[in-house]
Amino acid sequence: MNGMARAGKDLGSIVVLGGDGFCGWPTSLHLSNLGYDVVIVDNLSRRKIDIDLEVESLTPIASISTRLRAWEELTGKRIRFERLTLGQNYYHFKALLAEVRPVAIVHFAEQRSAPYSMKSPREKRYTVNNNLNATNDVLCAIVETGIEAHLVHLGTMGVYGYGTAGLDIPEGYLQVMVQTDLGPQSMEILFPVNPGSIYHMTKTQDQLFFLYYNKNDGVRITDLHQGVVWGTQTQETSLDERLINRFDYDGDYGTVLNRFLMQAVLGYPLTVHGTGGQTRAFIHIQDSVRCIELAIANAPKRGERVRIFNQMTETHRVIDLAKMVSEKTGTPYKLIENPRNEADQNELRVSNAGFLQLGFKPTKLEDNLLTEVQDIARKYIHRCDRSKIPCTSLWRPREQSVPTEASR
Amino acid sequence: MNGMARAGKDLGSIVVLGGDGFCGWPTSLHLSNLGYDVVIVDNLSRRKIDIDLEVESLTPIASISTRLRAWEELTGKRIRFERLTLGQNYYHFKALLAEVRPVAIVHFAEQRSAPYSMKSPREKRYTVNNNLNATNDVLCAIVETGIEAHLVHLGTMGVYGYGTAGLDIPEGYLQVMVQTDLGPQSMEILFPVNPGSIYHMTKTQDQLFFLYYNKNDGVRITDLHQGVVWGTQTQETSLDERLINRFDYDGDYGTVLNRFLMQAVLGYPLTVHGTGGQTRAFIHIQDSVRCIELAIANAPKRGERVRIFNQMTETHRVIDLAKMVSEKTGTPYKLIENPRNEADQNELRVSNAGFLQLGFKPTKLEDNLLTEVQDIARKYIHRCDRSKIPCTSLWRPREQSVPTEASR
Repeated sequence: MNGMARAGKDLGSIVVLGGDGFCGWPTSLHLSNLGYDVVIVDNLSRRKIDIDLEVESLTPIASISTRLRAWEELTGKRIRFERLTLGQNYYHFKALLAEVRPVAIVHFAEQRSAPYSMKSPREKRYTVNNNLNATNDVLCAIVETGIEAHLVHLGTMGVYGYGTAGLDIPEGYLQVMVQTDLGPQSMEILFPVNPGSIYHMTKTQDQLFFLYYNKNDGVRITDLHQGVVWGTQTQETSLDERLINRFDYDGDYGTVLNRFLMQAVLGYPLTVHGTGGQTRAFIHIQDSVRCIELAIANAPKRGERVRIFNQMTETHRVIDLAKMVSEKTGTPYKLIENPRNEADQNELRVSNAGFLQLGFKPTKLEDNLLTEVQDIARKYIHRCDRSKIPCTSLWRPREQSVPTEASR
Repeated sequence: MNGMARAGKDLGSIVVLGGDGFCGWPTSLHLSNLGYDVVIVDNLSRRKIDIDLEVESLTPIASISTRLRAWEELTGKRIRFERLTLGQNYYHFKALLAEVRPVAIVHFAEQRSAPYSMKSPREKRYTVNNNLNATNDVLCAIVETGIEAHLVHLGTMGVYGYGTAGLDIPEGYLQVMVQTDLGPQSMEILFPVNPGSIYHMTKTQDQLFFLYYNKNDGVRITDLHQGVVWGTQTQETSLDERLINRFDYDGDYGTVLNRFLMQAVLGYPLTVHGTGGQTRAFIHIQDSVRCIELAIANAPKRGERVRIFNQMTETHRVIDLAKMVSEKTGTPYKLIENPRNEADQNELRVSNAGFLQLGFKPTKLEDNLLTEVQDIARKYIHRCDRSKIPCTSLWRPREQSVPTEASR
């Protein structure tokens, strides 16, 4: 482990909000391995939602205590865990920040499934309440404690909507011209948003929290507009089965790729929504944690506006993903009705110049897909509840649409 | 009362959220008088905040029961009252909508003071939690009940920030040009926001709720970007002292004009923040209720995007307001330090073409100021707690600024 060599350095503390989740857990281990003192804040809500949905991660994830014990046993590194709910336990959280005085806070503490956010008023209201109050509490506590922590937030490519003809989606800001009495004037604006679900909407609202707290209070913020994350393991999580990361394949939390992998291994035709012409941006979980490392190491200066990076490495049409999985596994695919309110086709061209300039080298889907098939899907297929693969959350009321098997 | 003549017509029901407050109460009476069946939803939070702040309306406002009894006694019209908290009592609210099936819902149920929203983390967190969950609950309940209600929301001119050189602030949407590979392309976007406080930030976040629920669920919405409301009474509230409207003069809820009026009557120099070069948009409360009537009578069609009107009639620099009050009362003014984070001067040019096209005729400040001085400020000055006039909420931490007497 390369962290060993750096054990002597005092890199300071990092608080990882939502550090028990799919992105948060590998990030926590990666940062701990690099030599940061990591504190995980989590209310274990992701595990509890599994109980409500009557699903489980395909991979057998250990309890957070077991995970942390295993990590210490293997590396000698301690990670502290605080169980609290952001947006509710403000004074507990504030006291923690005042004590730890982190150099950075990584914020994953949001409900992150679009289909889950559309299930019913209960999930819509939960997603809004949880995500918005969590983000506000973090910012409010940074200001009130007066700490100099850099906030790194996981946003989504989905804030942009799905592309504009002839335009690379820039990193957050867009240069436009406006007609005024003084002639045409140039303005730099946040890329106009077009959220596709309640979940995506909360991320567009987060951008306004950042705009405001950055401007009024000078909070230093990096907002990472992440693509769909694929892959399960990172260098650290694959050290021991007790450290294994989540693999979600259910219709709410499973990504399109994970559901294709399950269907392929089970020998079911891969279900493609609509024409499969929807284009999405992707990034491997190993690259995602590496990007967060880079974002932390390259904090904005005090007084600098919110820094926005597009955290993705490649774009694919859903139909091309299906073909790729189909070729590698021999399982065919079929087209079914789309439960989402979205265009059947879209172009998506994204700039990710920010991370490339910081020296980032991407992992390609084409090259690593077989690892996912063999090491995860085949290995744990006995744990799969196949009834959970179809997507049952609808974007429209039931009378306007019929439930279908679904992919995203 | 002109409503009498129309008593036979069935105009349907209207639910007024926050119908006990400064804008909500006169709106409820006005709509009742026009012949709508009005249902007020309110949790009386505005009265309760007065308890926390240890202040009272200068005018002696009656309890909501007394108000409604007096209204029925005078006009024969009944207004129903439901006490519930939007954002919390969702199932109570949804049942009410399903029963009443209103043609319109007027949404004032938000914490509406910028200085209050800046007092401390408690008020910042309350404002975010209350305003965002309230708006989401209303939209969610409209969708879930399947009613065809038109939502009329009170937003603020403050979502725009404070103007752009050479440009009339348009009604919500701005036409811009973007450079693409296919040449320059025109886009219509929401006017880029620049919120000046936590309160204003929540109103910019509300716009994204509207954008989303309008696009995904077809909810018909009118968002009124209102200026600073001045004046106390409307035709209906002045019928009887039991119907009198609030007059706030404290540093948090009192507008700059109300505080000038109190200072003038007390013979204190009017306190102007900074240079007084800040320009604000204004509207009289009588015009405000009239605009809401017009917005309701001219609902967007199903499938139409969110309609945005600027609800204001004139703009003034704070220094010019001070001079106007000073001339009418003989009280001098003085400049003091500004507790807000804002430019000392700004230009503000606003389009209000939408309402003017609907036949709206504004009341001018210059003509009606003396009524406020005589009928409200002089009449009730014995109820004034002069220690409450200065503004003590700061936009910056205490070490960067000193508390001052303040105006807005």
